[in-house]
Amino acid sequence: MSFEAAVHAQAIDLDKLSLDICAEAGSGHPSSAMSLGHIVTVLMFHTMRWSPEAPDYPTSDRLVLSEGHAVPIIYAAYSRLGGMIGRTPAEWRPMTIEDALSLRDGPSVIDGHPNPREGFPFFDAATGSLGQGLSVAAGLGDAARLDGYDRLIYCIIGDGESREGQIAEALDYLIDQRLSNVLPIFNCNNYGQAGRVSDQQSPETIQAKLEAAGFTVRAIDGHDPAQIREAFEAFTKLQETENAGPMAVVARTVKGWGAPTVQAGNWHGKPAHGESLTRAKEELDQRRVELTSSLVQSDQFVIRPPTEAPAREFAPGEIPSFSDTMRRYDMESTLHAGRLATRKAYGLALRALGHVNDRVVVLDADVSNSTFAETFAKDPALADRYFECKIAEQNMISVGVGLSAAGKIPFCSTFSKFLTRAYDQIEMAINSGANLKLVGSHAGITLAADGPSQMGLPDIAWFRAFTTMKDHRGNPGCYILQPSDAYAAYALTGVMAEYEGCCYMRTLRSDTEFLYSDDVVFNLGGFEVLSEGRDVLLVAAGYMVHEANKALEELDRQGISATLVDLYSLPFDGDALLDLAQANNGYVITLEDNYGASIGAAVADVMTESGDSFTLQQMHVRRIPKSARTPEEVLSMCGLSSGDIAARCLDLLQVGAV
Amino acid sequence: MSFEAAVHAQAIDLDKLSLDICAEAGSGHPSSAMSLGHIVTVLMFHTMRWSPEAPDYPTSDRLVLSEGHAVPIIYAAYSRLGGMIGRTPAEWRPMTIEDALSLRDGPSVIDGHPNPREGFPFFDAATGSLGQGLSVAAGLGDAARLDGYDRLIYCIIGDGESREGQIAEALDYLIDQRLSNVLPIFNCNNYGQAGRVSDQQSPETIQAKLEAAGFTVRAIDGHDPAQIREAFEAFTKLQETENAGPMAVVARTVKGWGAPTVQAGNWHGKPAHGESLTRAKEELDQRRVELTSSLVQSDQFVIRPPTEAPAREFAPGEIPSFSDTMRRYDMESTLHAGRLATRKAYGLALRALGHVNDRVVVLDADVSNSTFAETFAKDPALADRYFECKIAEQNMISVGVGLSAAGKIPFCSTFSKFLTRAYDQIEMAINSGANLKLVGSHAGITLAADGPSQMGLPDIAWFRAFTTMKDHRGNPGCYILQPSDAYAAYALTGVMAEYEGCCYMRTLRSDTEFLYSDDVVFNLGGFEVLSEGRDVLLVAAGYMVHEANKALEELDRQGISATLVDLYSLPFDGDALLDLAQANNGYVITLEDNYGASIGAAVADVMTESGDSFTLQQMHVRRIPKSARTPEEVLSMCGLSSGDIAARCLDLLQVGAV
Repeated sequence: MSFEAAVHAQAIDLDKLSLDICAEAGSGHPSSAMSLGHIVTVLMFHTMRWSPEAPDYPTSDRLVLSEGHAVPIIYAAYSRLGGMIGRTPAEWRPMTIEDALSLRDGPSVIDGHPNPREGFPFFDAATGSLGQGLSVAAGLGDAARLDGYDRLIYCIIGDGESREGQIAEALDYLIDQRLSNVLPIFNCNNYGQAGRVSDQQSPETIQAKLEAAGFTVRAIDGHDPAQIREAFEAFTKLQETENAGPMAVVARTVKGWGAPTVQAGNWHGKPAHGESLTRAKEELDQRRVELTSSLVQSDQFVIRPPTEAPAREFAPGEIPSFSDTMRRYDMESTLHAGRLATRKAYGLALRALGHVNDRVVVLDADVSNSTFAETFAKDPALADRYFECKIAEQNMISVGVGLSAAGKIPFCSTFSKFLTRAYDQIEMAINSGANLKLVGSHAGITLAADGPSQMGLPDIAWFRAFTTMKDHRGNPGCYILQPSDAYAAYALTGVMAEYEGCCYMRTLRSDTEFLYSDDVVFNLGGFEVLSEGRDVLLVAAGYMVHEANKALEELDRQGISATLVDLYSLPFDGDALLDLAQANNGYVITLEDNYGASIGAAVADVMTESGDSFTLQQMHVRRIPKSARTPEEVLSMCGLSSGDIAARCLDLLQVGAV
Repeated sequence: MSFEAAVHAQAIDLDKLSLDICAEAGSGHPSSAMSLGHIVTVLMFHTMRWSPEAPDYPTSDRLVLSEGHAVPIIYAAYSRLGGMIGRTPAEWRPMTIEDALSLRDGPSVIDGHPNPREGFPFFDAATGSLGQGLSVAAGLGDAARLDGYDRLIYCIIGDGESREGQIAEALDYLIDQRLSNVLPIFNCNNYGQAGRVSDQQSPETIQAKLEAAGFTVRAIDGHDPAQIREAFEAFTKLQETENAGPMAVVARTVKGWGAPTVQAGNWHGKPAHGESLTRAKEELDQRRVELTSSLVQSDQFVIRPPTEAPAREFAPGEIPSFSDTMRRYDMESTLHAGRLATRKAYGLALRALGHVNDRVVVLDADVSNSTFAETFAKDPALADRYFECKIAEQNMISVGVGLSAAGKIPFCSTFSKFLTRAYDQIEMAINSGANLKLVGSHAGITLAADGPSQMGLPDIAWFRAFTTMKDHRGNPGCYILQPSDAYAAYALTGVMAEYEGCCYMRTLRSDTEFLYSDDVVFNLGGFEVLSEGRDVLLVAAGYMVHEANKALEELDRQGISATLVDLYSLPFDGDALLDLAQANNGYVITLEDNYGASIGAAVADVMTESGDSFTLQQMHVRRIPKSARTPEEVLSMCGLSSGDIAARCLDLLQVGAV
């Protein structure tokens, strides 16, 4: 049987299986899947160098299905090839047709959209929320080049999907990075969900845009096996050319290819049942007869194994102490000055980390001189592990997911406000089990002069949702860290690197005084007691710890003995905090320079869970902030100055006039 | 004085003033501002048809500064022209140079980044978080065309900024909509924040991409007054051509133009002080001598007024009742069946609303057949008020902001999960005072089969931050609405339209039983008591109200008298809820099929604020969900079935074995 006939036969087999899979599930996207039958056949049965027995082998070629809802076609292929499935390597077993038919069932690892964490190690990341996969592929490509692996990354993107701005970001990034080891494949089947794709996403326009961005484009019939193979061979050949620019494939396909029954009308996301199902499969059988001369299952395909992965030892060291690092980099005078912004300490810690942990990589979005990721980036020994993503945060985060899937430890930074741009991507990263370290600078209102378009205000509220649930490892979905001084920021950066799972650290614009020393140990889930009193418990984080400290002096003058806790981590040890609260009459005031539903709410949660009686006052920003020239001014505007804190304590304790 | 000389003279004046403004503020972006001196001069002093005395006149040409940090140049121009500033029309007064020099000061309306709500009515929306303004401009353009206004929208975008994927989304949208009344102007000054822009954002590449997307492009020297004027004249002339496609301008500019002192090194976001300031202004004076022959302030410019705005009457009617609308649209049988998904009721309400309120417009992102925005879109009488945004949520939301600024009431829908893509834009909308109605469908885990990449899980947590603060009107930053049945969804849609401010409503995939009737009045901030008991208070929303109802039967069998509250609004009347809790021994269980930090936390907030003792158990999703074929299955997987609820009550009340 010729290659073409074999591909047709196999594609049709996968198309039929996709129809059955979705019929059995009662939901799914068979017509989307069928537009990819030929491309996926050529990739998984012929082109990709991989091993179904060891699907996550470090040097295997990878396939990222950005168009995640088309996954039934990959499940079909994988079940034919007996690829390994299972949530842990210990549970791995070859996938069967029965597994495929269990799509979307509760106990099944065959999930509605791709997710390696649910037991499908062929994939590197969860997809399904559109527009993200090409960035993941770019991250995998970055890692492959860093590691010197001969590894190619294929990424399938839907035409309707390519409307998502993140795809444009990823394409620019591929060109900037000259990642010619990544192949974007645009699946142009002409239909989105609610109708035809816009002319802006036609194959011609997609090609024109790609060429304008600097890609070499191969336009093909996505159901013509010879054209598909040749396109992939061109990609393989590209790897032999030094410093070649990336190429892309634009494939015209047919949604519901081969079965007119599932083409007419709107079949997006609709399984075929009963008569429609029977008819569609008959139509596919008919195509098979037309396109191949044999009724025999093809055994013509040979999957080439990946190149051998070199043995790699990973022996990370511990970072030196903060003071040692300060001295090493000629910052002794600052050490003595006793003040340094947490964002600067973060940069320093990154640099120290880079030298002892070669898996650490750093990404930033054109603000590295504000976040101080530049401290890492400008170290010549580390520069090749720095990835400048420019003003495109969505892409940055999903690139981080790809890097993480390839075993790196990505630290991604930008202003905390701008990280909001990538919340969808961050959630998908958590679902993927990515080992992402997120750092949002310029948090809170003390940013002052730039105003609210640059301030992180509702960010803790969002991340807090992930502190209330567990990820696939059984850890909190995400830790939120708020170092209040340079020592804490430095230490927590090191802690993040040693921990496996998602973390989000907020840093500040302002220089802040040192509160701690090299001896203080910071833990995920911990908190620090800065002052022990018995009248009222103040709970603060970040900048507000310093403001609270000022208030302590005033309170002391008034004869009030206050306890001050630096709640640098969410989640935190609720029992321990409540003990402290009890030791302070049950009076608690939380202090934060961001919107509510944040630290105060976290404290309210543990209080109400206990069932005991407490008095909690939450001080936070309750209006839209505006520019002010100094942090003091904006804090006063928002009723969060040390004077306001002291007044609130006195009011709570009903102590005389202020 | 020739036009060119006059423009140079005026631009240099504005450049110097920008330097002074930022020096006075101690922060700001003068070099970015100076790259726009000429363009802004031609626009504001010559090309735009507007009135400094009536800056928000309905038919005025508009300028959207997407590159928000360059705002000092506009403040400079506006202060020269004595444009009106002030937080309300009653407070309006002409802007002075002193006002300009108060940039970023706390009491000043001259904020660090553009925001009409802070008292600068020349702008339509807050910008400063990059990449959003072109979509706002598109929304203004959509509204102008809908209203039949002869009104042109100018939008300035930074080159580094254009890396943001949302810009690509907005460009595609302009072409799709053939919004030739909007002019994107790319300010190519070659530098971002941390370094040079990528070659992907060079003027040549930006032009190539624009042309690939279908724009006619004018490439100009952004400091050549004749070229600027001609480009704008080409844009004006374009309006005379029927169905002309949009054009764009790519302007090469110099960051810190005219003053080498602020060009060398990295002057992004740095004010010049002392000697640098003096020298820079001298350099500009020198340029002025070179470029103009006169030392006299030009009075050559004439600002043309806007076309007259037709008197418009706005007399919205009330929507008919849910049953009346159901009957009107031949859904009587469904009415009798007693079940309808809230998302379908939403679509119906939209349609009814469209007929009584001509300001209502609807946007969706390729999922209108899932969100049921299509019910509005497919009504021929309403179709021209429907804006299909395709798979590009960021653009959709900012287009909504533009439409709102032009007096429309935009309802923007997609899956609640995908709305996450636009959280940065939503926050900017709230800062702008936009009257945005957001509808997120397929909320919670009961979506079931598609899995977590399509489920809204941390969304309430994020929006909750905005329920804890007040916007510029003094209202909650955003209301969160969770109708539990079709009657509630229908009614709340009408309530949203009558309210001025941001709202977020969650709808469900599943059909749900009717719980209410036409007589029930739903209010922002309200809740409904579905069942009055005395042993325990169950607080639920959305799908979980139905699950709780099932639990009530089981509890009743066990002799437990439970109160059930449908908490359809956040924020809500905390005192009233706590009264109910007290009437139930202070025992409260909250029920939601999303991650924590949501409804339960909102209840914890009000409990702890009261200082009284309650026992609160929060039932919510505490793991990453996966696909399951039915809602029942996924609820059980997450411990949230009616059986689980009943068991938790019994456990709480310590009543025998279940």
